[in-house]
Amino acid sequence: MLSEFELISRYFKRPLHPGSRTALGIGDDCALLTPAPGCQLAISSDMLVEGRHFFAQADAYALGHKCLAVNLSDLAAMGAQPIAFTLALALPAAEEAWLEPFSSGLLALAQKYGCELIGGDTTKGPLTISITVFGEIPLTQALRRDAAKIGDDIWISGSLGDARLALAAYRHELHLDAESLHTAAQRMHQPAPRVALGMALRGIAHAAIDVSDGLSGDLGHILQGSRVGACVDLDALPAGTILQQQPAALRHDFMLNGGDDYELCFTAPSHRREQVLSAAEQAGVEVTRVGIIEATPGLRLVDGNDNPVVLTLHSFDHFSA
Amino acid sequence: MLSEFELISRYFKRPLHPGSRTALGIGDDCALLTPAPGCQLAISSDMLVEGRHFFAQADAYALGHKCLAVNLSDLAAMGAQPIAFTLALALPAAEEAWLEPFSSGLLALAQKYGCELIGGDTTKGPLTISITVFGEIPLTQALRRDAAKIGDDIWISGSLGDARLALAAYRHELHLDAESLHTAAQRMHQPAPRVALGMALRGIAHAAIDVSDGLSGDLGHILQGSRVGACVDLDALPAGTILQQQPAALRHDFMLNGGDDYELCFTAPSHRREQVLSAAEQAGVEVTRVGIIEATPGLRLVDGNDNPVVLTLHSFDHFSA
Repeated sequence: MLSEFELISRYFKRPLHPGSRTALGIGDDCALLTPAPGCQLAISSDMLVEGRHFFAQADAYALGHKCLAVNLSDLAAMGAQPIAFTLALALPAAEEAWLEPFSSGLLALAQKYGCELIGGDTTKGPLTISITVFGEIPLTQALRRDAAKIGDDIWISGSLGDARLALAAYRHELHLDAESLHTAAQRMHQPAPRVALGMALRGIAHAAIDVSDGLSGDLGHILQGSRVGACVDLDALPAGTILQQQPAALRHDFMLNGGDDYELCFTAPSHRREQVLSAAEQAGVEVTRVGIIEATPGLRLVDGNDNPVVLTLHSFDHFSA
Repeated sequence: MLSEFELISRYFKRPLHPGSRTALGIGDDCALLTPAPGCQLAISSDMLVEGRHFFAQADAYALGHKCLAVNLSDLAAMGAQPIAFTLALALPAAEEAWLEPFSSGLLALAQKYGCELIGGDTTKGPLTISITVFGEIPLTQALRRDAAKIGDDIWISGSLGDARLALAAYRHELHLDAESLHTAAQRMHQPAPRVALGMALRGIAHAAIDVSDGLSGDLGHILQGSRVGACVDLDALPAGTILQQQPAALRHDFMLNGGDDYELCFTAPSHRREQVLSAAEQAGVEVTRVGIIEATPGLRLVDGNDNPVVLTLHSFDHFSA
């Protein structure tokens, strides 16, 4: 049986990078971080619970990837560069058959983004994964929710709705052939945080948020925080490659209300369209202009001919329904 | 039924302090912290799970206090000043009868130490509380585990063993009268993090650790980290006020092996005894000199007459036994 110390040292402790911000990593009462002068720390926490955020049978490698990816996505939405994270882990038992792939998936993504595991906690309990991630951002450059301006374009990175489509197939709400399900499920299980795009948008975008609970709700946070409204063209929304094959009503519903996309929704002044497009090209991500920020509060939906569309909007809430 | 947003805004969102390091608190993708120039961030995470770290019937106010206190204790052990924390919370249901006292206990302690709640996550799940705490410390002044020097005095703050004594009474391993149990249980349920002492020991102490899993194991971490050994005088160890009334064998066992004390164990050169004592006086905490750091690896126990004592030592491990 692995002890707590063996578990940490075997699966989670890695040498620090050269140029690391970590002055002291795993193994003391605290880790020590030294942020670069003139920078702020961006900090975000997420907790994933078995049976709620993932199935008991979930692939441990993909789970390790996903639980860090959703945190990196929050950094991306502020334009911050990942530097480090802590991991608090409750486990029913210290099973190597789970720990090995979980830590591999987690640390592969961490390595890709230069984000070091600097500390945390392990304990016995129902499988629960709690990560707090740290990013660095030059003072005043963070992309905040409250910074959208009237007249801003609204942009979406990548595509929306395939993660929700995979969930619908798992729930037998609809049928997908095996290949389509596999492609859509990749979006659910192994989201790609838009870190490079978020950083490239510093000084270009005004407001940003990551789409984790559905575009309507998440864009709604920007509108509320910035005290503005928006008009969004439903026909302009970028549907996921598999969702594109579904009927329009389902497409619209899943893009607006589906969660787990981890794309960025951001606003930028219309005179910076060229800069937005070259930032996206530099980051290797498609971006699509889907609407405009307006003075009148609320979210208005139109079709490609500018005709109003009425849809039921509902964002995900952990304690309702 | 409370929504997730109402829950956070009602129970956990508070105005920021003047002079706060928090540039942006709860409500965006990330919080933003601006550490003081010339300072490092000390970071620690702890996860508390129902049935493992506390009983289902635990008083919610005391639990709110304790889950932050154990994290502040880690900052204290580095000599860091608390500035902020994040809270990730899995809850079976959003019950106001639990949330109100829990958040009150948590935020009362946070307020006492100027430690702001800047973000986190709430989700449905088995009751699990995961806190990541941030402290500030001038560069090079952190009290690390690997900094003990041969010839250093070993000191303990406050007293040891009453938390373990209360646990023994709860487990019916022994009987305590109601008043004694109440006093001892206070040590278990509402530990006082030694933040002021940790900060006062900057530049005076060499190594420090907080005693959470038992003195023998925790001092053992200093010895391992610093590649030294120690001799500790069992008769010098400061027993808790209730534990003092117990037989010597039980006293020694609970002080060495009992967890949940959250005192500081630290080392300092013998020529700084006066400075240690005035730091402790300034912090309003008793400190007791209990041993000495030696070159020979391992922990040797002696009695007040310097005769060797052999005891079974065992520290707490979440995945053994």
